Amino acid sequence: MQKPWEGRFKEKTEEFVERFTQSVSFDKELAFWDIKQSVAHVKTLLKAGIITQEEAQSILQGLKDIEESILKGSFEFKQELEDVHMNIEVELIKRKGEVGGKLHTGRSRNDQVATDERLYIKDEILQVCGLLRDLRKVLVKLAENSLEVVMPSYTHLQRAQPIRLSHYFLAYREIFLSDEERFLRAYRSADYLPLGSGAVAGVDFPLDRFYTAELLGFNRLCRNSMQATADRDFVLDVLYACAVCGMHLSRLSEDLILWSTEEFGFVDLPDRLCTGSSIMPQKKNPDVLELIRGKTGRLYGNLIGFFTTLKALPMAYNRDLQEDKEPLFDSLRTIQDCLTGTKLVLEGMSIKADAMKRASGGFTLMTDLANYLVLKGVAFRQAHHIAGSITSYLIEKGKRPEDLTLEELRNFSELYQEDALELLNPEKVADRRRTYGGTAKEELVKRIEVAKREEGMK
Amino acid sequence: MQKPWEGRFKEKTEEFVERFTQSVSFDKELAFWDIKQSVAHVKTLLKAGIITQEEAQSILQGLKDIEESILKGSFEFKQELEDVHMNIEVELIKRKGEVGGKLHTGRSRNDQVATDERLYIKDEILQVCGLLRDLRKVLVKLAENSLEVVMPSYTHLQRAQPIRLSHYFLAYREIFLSDEERFLRAYRSADYLPLGSGAVAGVDFPLDRFYTAELLGFNRLCRNSMQATADRDFVLDVLYACAVCGMHLSRLSEDLILWSTEEFGFVDLPDRLCTGSSIMPQKKNPDVLELIRGKTGRLYGNLIGFFTTLKALPMAYNRDLQEDKEPLFDSLRTIQDCLTGTKLVLEGMSIKADAMKRASGGFTLMTDLANYLVLKGVAFRQAHHIAGSITSYLIEKGKRPEDLTLEELRNFSELYQEDALELLNPEKVADRRRTYGGTAKEELVKRIEVAKREEGMK
Amino acid sequence: MQKPWEGRFKEKTEEFVERFTQSVSFDKELAFWDIKQSVAHVKTLLKAGIITQEEAQSILQGLKDIEESILKGSFEFKQELEDVHMNIEVELIKRKGEVGGKLHTGRSRNDQVATDERLYIKDEILQVCGLLRDLRKVLVKLAENSLEVVMPSYTHLQRAQPIRLSHYFLAYREIFLSDEERFLRAYRSADYLPLGSGAVAGVDFPLDRFYTAELLGFNRLCRNSMQATADRDFVLDVLYACAVCGMHLSRLSEDLILWSTEEFGFVDLPDRLCTGSSIMPQKKNPDVLELIRGKTGRLYGNLIGFFTTLKALPMAYNRDLQEDKEPLFDSLRTIQDCLTGTKLVLEGMSIKADAMKRASGGFTLMTDLANYLVLKGVAFRQAHHIAGSITSYLIEKGKRPEDLTLEELRNFSELYQEDALELLNPEKVADRRRTYGGTAKEELVKRIEVAKREEGMK
Amino acid sequence: MQKPWEGRFKEKTEEFVERFTQSVSFDKELAFWDIKQSVAHVKTLLKAGIITQEEAQSILQGLKDIEESILKGSFEFKQELEDVHMNIEVELIKRKGEVGGKLHTGRSRNDQVATDERLYIKDEILQVCGLLRDLRKVLVKLAENSLEVVMPSYTHLQRAQPIRLSHYFLAYREIFLSDEERFLRAYRSADYLPLGSGAVAGVDFPLDRFYTAELLGFNRLCRNSMQATADRDFVLDVLYACAVCGMHLSRLSEDLILWSTEEFGFVDLPDRLCTGSSIMPQKKNPDVLELIRGKTGRLYGNLIGFFTTLKALPMAYNRDLQEDKEPLFDSLRTIQDCLTGTKLVLEGMSIKADAMKRASGGFTLMTDLANYLVLKGVAFRQAHHIAGSITSYLIEKGKRPEDLTLEELRNFSELYQEDALELLNPEKVADRRRTYGGTAKEELVKRIEVAKREEGMK
Repeated sequence: MQKPWEGRFKEKTEEFVERFTQSVSFDKELAFWDIKQSVAHVKTLLKAGIITQEEAQSILQGLKDIEESILKGSFEFKQELEDVHMNIEVELIKRKGEVGGKLHTGRSRNDQVATDERLYIKDEILQVCGLLRDLRKVLVKLAENSLEVVMPSYTHLQRAQPIRLSHYFLAYREIFLSDEERFLRAYRSADYLPLGSGAVAGVDFPLDRFYTAELLGFNRLCRNSMQATADRDFVLDVLYACAVCGMHLSRLSEDLILWSTEEFGFVDLPDRLCTGSSIMPQKKNPDVLELIRGKTGRLYGNLIGFFTTLKALPMAYNRDLQEDKEPLFDSLRTIQDCLTGTKLVLEGMSIKADAMKRASGGFTLMTDLANYLVLKGVAFRQAHHIAGSITSYLIEKGKRPEDLTLEELRNFSELYQEDALELLNPEKVADRRRTYGGTAKEELVKRIEVAKREEGMK
Repeated sequence: MQKPWEGRFKEKTEEFVERFTQSVSFDKELAFWDIKQSVAHVKTLLKAGIITQEEAQSILQGLKDIEESILKGSFEFKQELEDVHMNIEVELIKRKGEVGGKLHTGRSRNDQVATDERLYIKDEILQVCGLLRDLRKVLVKLAENSLEVVMPSYTHLQRAQPIRLSHYFLAYREIFLSDEERFLRAYRSADYLPLGSGAVAGVDFPLDRFYTAELLGFNRLCRNSMQATADRDFVLDVLYACAVCGMHLSRLSEDLILWSTEEFGFVDLPDRLCTGSSIMPQKKNPDVLELIRGKTGRLYGNLIGFFTTLKALPMAYNRDLQEDKEPLFDSLRTIQDCLTGTKLVLEGMSIKADAMKRASGGFTLMTDLANYLVLKGVAFRQAHHIAGSITSYLIEKGKRPEDLTLEELRNFSELYQEDALELLNPEKVADRRRTYGGTAKEELVKRIEVAKREEGMK
Repeated sequence: MQKPWEGRFKEKTEEFVERFTQSVSFDKELAFWDIKQSVAHVKTLLKAGIITQEEAQSILQGLKDIEESILKGSFEFKQELEDVHMNIEVELIKRKGEVGGKLHTGRSRNDQVATDERLYIKDEILQVCGLLRDLRKVLVKLAENSLEVVMPSYTHLQRAQPIRLSHYFLAYREIFLSDEERFLRAYRSADYLPLGSGAVAGVDFPLDRFYTAELLGFNRLCRNSMQATADRDFVLDVLYACAVCGMHLSRLSEDLILWSTEEFGFVDLPDRLCTGSSIMPQKKNPDVLELIRGKTGRLYGNLIGFFTTLKALPMAYNRDLQEDKEPLFDSLRTIQDCLTGTKLVLEGMSIKADAMKRASGGFTLMTDLANYLVLKGVAFRQAHHIAGSITSYLIEKGKRPEDLTLEELRNFSELYQEDALELLNPEKVADRRRTYGGTAKEELVKRIEVAKREEGMK
Repeated sequence: MQKPWEGRFKEKTEEFVERFTQSVSFDKELAFWDIKQSVAHVKTLLKAGIITQEEAQSILQGLKDIEESILKGSFEFKQELEDVHMNIEVELIKRKGEVGGKLHTGRSRNDQVATDERLYIKDEILQVCGLLRDLRKVLVKLAENSLEVVMPSYTHLQRAQPIRLSHYFLAYREIFLSDEERFLRAYRSADYLPLGSGAVAGVDFPLDRFYTAELLGFNRLCRNSMQATADRDFVLDVLYACAVCGMHLSRLSEDLILWSTEEFGFVDLPDRLCTGSSIMPQKKNPDVLELIRGKTGRLYGNLIGFFTTLKALPMAYNRDLQEDKEPLFDSLRTIQDCLTGTKLVLEGMSIKADAMKRASGGFTLMTDLANYLVLKGVAFRQAHHIAGSITSYLIEKGKRPEDLTLEELRNFSELYQEDALELLNPEKVADRRRTYGGTAKEELVKRIEVAKREEGMK
């Protein structure tokens, strides 16, 4: 098969080279977008008077036919034609004759592929944002349903202070909201039209790039043809958003894996989301969560890998840039799967409120014994020191804070009154944290209201 | 020296542990911001009626004194006091007595350090943006002064098509404009106030966080106390912006290193920006550019390193997070140095226009010989093939395109006329690329106008 | 289809979970090794008296049949059976009945998959080492054939001192020799048998693991069952060896890309190893080299990605470890392709000795003008300074060192004699570097001899 | 101050450039090694007859003096002299006069710095190996002391099968043994002498490099001067060994952090190794372990960072390589600290054997109920299914396996006999895993014996 560029070549391309340099085995994922842009390009050529109405008609018909073949699965992508662009163009010429050879006028694969990728990314990001929103809605619902569940918060994985479980879910809602923002930033990075930049220097046909942009739904144009063809920052921005989001999911997974251990016993995962052991009959493993956690590696790897490829690349297009696609596709696929998996687990798990409650008391109450004194005028450092001594005393005696009598308390400070004993109750302690963003019930109720409004849940 | 938290501890901290866990040797960089936030915190405590006007006065005076000691270099940071926060608090108590112990009321180091870092980042980003703008202005000036310089553009590091040198500089201006955007995104990520979140669960004093935010210049508040203390995405966003910007600088450096080889000979670096060899007397090496290129590694490393630290961390604060500071400080320092170095080189180098001109002709003109035929109605693919054959012919004959006669051209296609010979001139060929973003002089003039306006240069 | 572990499960696995957790779509690459190990396992079970001769016979026959089906391409791997192990076991039971259910006795997928991977890696590494050796032989041949070609060496990409081209090729031979060592280290890491470790705690059947090791060609045994199933360092070691080797290839590619520019013009790549432009008819791009350089990213990404996955994983096996396979397969495939591509380019390129020669004189000769004085007793620093002044003088006069007269030299130092003019010849200067490992011809001849002996080329 | 190379330079180095390109602020860490190599170099120059006995004497005396000044802390390193090498050479000339200018004869900073680093690395690695051995000895002692402690092993962080705690410690001993091997590989990579390679092409003085190697304790010589000066693989190998070792420590830390939660309650950390909270009086946080886990990021970052720097660097030395030192020093310092911290924690923690024992029964016993049937001839798959059904039955009834009566068992299979009830005891179950590397006590005793012998503990 003849290569479109082989005019000046004396030798046939070595077979290894054909296989090694081809991209069609993966860039065919862009076929739909490639056709979409070709349609816009044809209309632009027509508007510029470079092709006739008739020629345009014929090419557009050919492209439509090819799109249908692809959808039907009957289109055969050929490795020796290198990439998705050449596969489609050659097929077009085959189907429509010489007029097909006019499609590539005023265009290079360098601006073409960048356009395809940007179209693809914009669309995929919207999918991801949909999944993020779904996940956040689940979190809001969980928050609403777990207002009455008290549990310990953790710092350093040591029990810290009692919170309401809603508070935890709302924390993750904030986090996934920030992910949406990061993805929308990547969307904006992608939302520039490169087409019309040619191979590197611009185009010597009078193409109206604003018109093309309008046809393809781009809000902005690349303003320099070298930058347009050499730049892959918009790919990095996606890979980065995926990596950060994956990191968040790994943290959430870690918590849920811990919570579903026998030791914590805070949640129970349903059989349908677990797998078993080939050898231990009792096992029910949180594989979905483990894989989500593990796939962080892949997301980081894709990011740093492509960062590496870009390092010290000279202007402008270099073939190295072909290495952008596989990590891009993989990260977008992975993040969508991980978001789906996380949502399934959150929806499916059952919360063991009793176990959480049991764990929420004890020494997590000590901060408030200190703060009690502060409100009576003791300097915080002094109060903190007194509460520390009470802690030591309890450990020595093998007692829990809940066992403290007023008398014992007053051995440490005369300022303790009857009402201090009320601090020995996790719910009450949680509800004292009424600052904006705190875990008090009244505050959480407000936050849930806001969240529902923002997520369009009411 | 007594640790502020040692109330419940029976043993003295092991010396190794003190050294290993301390952060004051590097987080003292935040001292100024730590005091700034303490001032705001004191005012908030006062507003909430937790401390008296007099107490506030005394603490504020103490903080001001300490700030002065630090500025004068007479403040001694002590490792055994762990971090910048404790060093300042302990000193405050030492200077002002028990009232100093009230400063930490309603605050934890967990929300405190996050606040310090966000303040620091916001300030640093503005510095970086200033340097980016300076660099872009240099590029615009260079673009303006090099409109008449023709050179070859490169793809695959092979000469592609003639461009005007201005076009190259404008490409990088676009790129550094996108960096500013990325840094401003990071700024917005940092622009949330965590203070008032306590250790993890919120605060049980009636602190007006909106008031604190206003005092500190934050536009938004963290809305969940767990997220506020567990999250370091705002650090990642900075590390990422630095890494992308560093990658851009590595690409520009690579070009300039190539251009200053004897082989390219496109630019000459001044002695004051080069260093010599300890052994080869003739050497004048582009060390600044090489180091900028090499430092990409450090910027990537800082990013992936801290990404690693965050992977699978449970909620909420964990001591692992202390590892955020050194990469953060290092990346911000590095990017500022690299931007400064790049600007110096661009301003200092001399452009060898003749060498560029000499390289800009030859086979870079072939595309236009193809496009000429397209405008006469030949399908692009066909025209491309004809021009490829002309190329082969020239190589075989050992001739350059500029040597072509009309007769020779017409051997390949009868459509070539006298005016085709005009295509054998790099300037003219460049000026044919008149599309928006192309390299034609008339287009570049417009782009420079826009750039000057956007950069406030007129 | 029934899952082998579903005894205790009440619900059917969710379809998403099946797809998300399955590994058979990629771990089927291990099928051949999985069967090989099952054969050894069956023999070990037989030796331990756990199965009868007849049962063993039947299972072995079944495994052989399945292997043939796989080779013929008629074996259908099913996603709902999770992985390659379960696919084969279920098929075995289907073909051979209940006896097939005895195969998994005393074995878990945890020790099984580690064994498969180690077998696979050992085999692949030997392939890679073969390719490395082929590449080195090409380099030695090139070195032998380019003894008479003089060129400049570069530091900082500035011309440094004249060398013989052989010297360059021998440098890379050393480098690829070190890669072999790194791969053999990875081989030794892989060369421990995990089988017989069970899921985590060892096996409660009297299996003779030394016998299994012998059957499978392992030289050592994992000595602790937890380590055996939790460890993936042997995967890291492969990913690391691939990354370092890829980095070497990226450096060599960079040089060859530079050398094939019009500016350097040191080598010419044959048409069959290049591809063209869809738009610029003259282009002949070094795509193979660019892709090799670009694929460094993928190799780094695979390494850091899996490193990420391993970070902070608790003992022992976790499902996260499933993420080891895709990067492993990809890195091994990539490095083999890149080695093949590099070899093709080195064999196919033509060296333009004249251009190299032309570039090798000039200021690269200055070091020897300094050293000449040293041999006359001048302190090196002083001599270096004098040669620096000569350089300045030449630049000012627009002359090259070759133009220097004895008189001019003596203006700088009376010590210069007639024989100093001999230093103004690149070959002679190269041949003065006679230390072990230097570029003098007599030294290179010795090094080539040694290399040929070591590579078995004579 | 005059730069040693400024003979041909017309302009003073820009102050920013001096600061930006200097390395002395960090490479002064190599001062001791730099002097050591200079001593050897002087002796080699003497042997070659390039300097006289007297000159050698004078230089050696000067170097000794300088070394003493450095040790005393009275040596002032100057930034404007760029690096440690120039600082020492200039000081030598200052102290000893012109003869000091002879030291750099036949040497370049390019081969010099590589030699310094290799000497440094070899020495540091031996330190690391000492720490690894100390750590392993602690693990062996712990293994010896915890033979009677039964605990659950975990897979997927779910309880799997009972093991003896010794088994866990021995697993980590194996892992840290593999680290030693990785560090020794890095040692072997470093153990090649570059000195005598000059700047890139070898040396034109008759230096006996084998003699230098002997003096400096190198076992091998770099065999090609370009490779010798361009290569930094020996740095990568160290960074890699540190990263893998750090990953191991992160996994161990993760386990111990989990074990020291209130939920697991398996170990207790002593006060002297913990720190407290600035706000929660009860907190005792495992900061050392968290920091060790967090520092994995830094170790990965250093590795990938320097990998990035090396990507696509042309031959031979480029200034980018200066970026090798800071990650190298940081990784070596970090890993040594982390090893020390881990050892302290392991030695200091107290093991709560009762809690471990309590957790070790229950469903972890189910595998053996299956295997019991296998030994009676049931196919493993069938047996596994039966045990799965028993599990379901128990969960439904809310019973533990230990509650099972023989009657109940026989409802699932008639093959269960009286002796099956013995399987409901964790110790006995552990001791059934008698394969080589299994957790049975008799096997562990043997492994401990071997370990003690290998570690020289008896």
